[in-house]
Amino acid sequence: MDQMDRSVACSPPLSRVVVSGGTHGNELAGVCLVKEWLRGDSAPCLERSSFTAQPLLANPRATEQGVRYVNTDLNRCFKTHTLSAPPSPSDPYELVRARELDSLLGPKGSDEAVDFICDLHNTTANMGASLILYSLSDYFCLHMLHHLQTHMQSAPVYCVVFEEPPSAAYSLDTIGKRGLALEVGPLPHGLVRADVLSQMSEGVKLILDFIDLFNRGTLFPPCQVEVYRKLEGLDFPRELQSGELSGTVHPERQDRDFRVLNPGDPLFLRFDGETVRFKGERPVYPFFINEAAYYEKKLALWTAERVSVSVPALRVRG
Amino acid sequence: MDQMDRSVACSPPLSRVVVSGGTHGNELAGVCLVKEWLRGDSAPCLERSSFTAQPLLANPRATEQGVRYVNTDLNRCFKTHTLSAPPSPSDPYELVRARELDSLLGPKGSDEAVDFICDLHNTTANMGASLILYSLSDYFCLHMLHHLQTHMQSAPVYCVVFEEPPSAAYSLDTIGKRGLALEVGPLPHGLVRADVLSQMSEGVKLILDFIDLFNRGTLFPPCQVEVYRKLEGLDFPRELQSGELSGTVHPERQDRDFRVLNPGDPLFLRFDGETVRFKGERPVYPFFINEAAYYEKKLALWTAERVSVSVPALRVRG
Repeated sequence: MDQMDRSVACSPPLSRVVVSGGTHGNELAGVCLVKEWLRGDSAPCLERSSFTAQPLLANPRATEQGVRYVNTDLNRCFKTHTLSAPPSPSDPYELVRARELDSLLGPKGSDEAVDFICDLHNTTANMGASLILYSLSDYFCLHMLHHLQTHMQSAPVYCVVFEEPPSAAYSLDTIGKRGLALEVGPLPHGLVRADVLSQMSEGVKLILDFIDLFNRGTLFPPCQVEVYRKLEGLDFPRELQSGELSGTVHPERQDRDFRVLNPGDPLFLRFDGETVRFKGERPVYPFFINEAAYYEKKLALWTAERVSVSVPALRVRG
Repeated sequence: MDQMDRSVACSPPLSRVVVSGGTHGNELAGVCLVKEWLRGDSAPCLERSSFTAQPLLANPRATEQGVRYVNTDLNRCFKTHTLSAPPSPSDPYELVRARELDSLLGPKGSDEAVDFICDLHNTTANMGASLILYSLSDYFCLHMLHHLQTHMQSAPVYCVVFEEPPSAAYSLDTIGKRGLALEVGPLPHGLVRADVLSQMSEGVKLILDFIDLFNRGTLFPPCQVEVYRKLEGLDFPRELQSGELSGTVHPERQDRDFRVLNPGDPLFLRFDGETVRFKGERPVYPFFINEAAYYEKKLALWTAERVSVSVPALRVRG
């Protein structure tokens, strides 16, 4: 927050707001929403009294091909040092595109950057509607979370926090002054379900409603929110020699994102039938459980601790 | 059947049996099962008293890359005229591999072909465990269906029939003397769930059990089975100009494979909110509803009619 005044966090109004999809080209709920918004002359659902959000298709080539990415994961290209590295003719497509997006919506960390980016994602994990933030003291987004948790009808709302300084935060939404990723799942990659599309639409509506309420001077009273702070990634069981999968998520853990995992609980089931139990020393809360795109990243799930955050009151700086 | 004797269909015993997976490299339940079987010196679950089934990884390159196919859909390469076309240096990888497989397991239509191929597939559609056949008079496989429907615990068992003469049937399982595809879903492509893996394992077990019972002289009495006979494919709503999706499967139809679709029932939901209703003139039974791999084939689902088939008694020709 820019200013703390009598325990009220204040910050300037937001006028340049972007809702992007297709950062991963096979996450089709975001792709379909953005394309639908881009088709018409106007998209009334992006209009509010204090601003109109701009839709953006982030990775057009990957979207065209129906793949997550063409050369490299676009949503890992937005660290400050990645963006500022000297361009080379051999740069992968997504790095070139990341620089384009940084020129368009950033530059990251500058006064010229757009005020807010909501980047739409889908996951094969059972994560409902999850906001992904980089800081436990991002009070603006934590009030937004509280707004969604209070009003969202179609899906449970969670928040995960990957604590990183802005320069090291690697995702598209970090080139705006503020931003977040909205993950909705479970959705298989490469297809769109009407129910998930509807959940994502409702999430976007509530995010834009919140920004509008904020711009128009609403005082958001102090609140307490629960977030999931990332601890570590755990890989699937693998063959020692080949590195190939030798098991998958245990049926008692599959789809149980954000439910407590205690030491000794079943975690993986090896293909030979053996149960692998969680060896941690304390209870954790897994998320991104069995996300298809993370197989190549050698990641079966992230663990998190559940943290309750006291958020001061918030209003626009008048 | 080779011979009908006092209303008992008879055919020779089966000794060369193949269970293949990875025909589509991102359908991971089949891939994981086959790789697990190939790893050990033996796979006891493929052994029966009258034969031992051979595991086969059908498309190793696509499996390595985690994609459905590298150049073209392998499971469309097994028509007789495709296999017999003169090879060319510009042939796609999958066509070259199809000829290799035809040499190894066929040649299609010849006396040298293996006795049975069970080809393992996964689908994003809610099809439980579905057997895919090419003929309503394939009594051997219809008895196998009845065996699965009687004994399968972990998933409902269905059967779809794409009526095609063998020469025009395009899938891998058609190069054996007999065969079928076992589709298990719903499973997102690119990941493996323990529950679906367990359903597929049970399906394979029952298929091999049935072949063993048959080989050992079991008389299978006449039975009646219900199958779904393919009618036509329906595409998603699309933009007239661009051909891009303008809607998806209606939430009241999603996941309702093999449930009746009556004229006037909701079928698709356009992204603008309009419901598209089924315009057919009679009730049909859709399957492969919202299969991710069929978006590129411009196919939202297949319709079928439900047919009850009287199957004569069956036993091995002694």
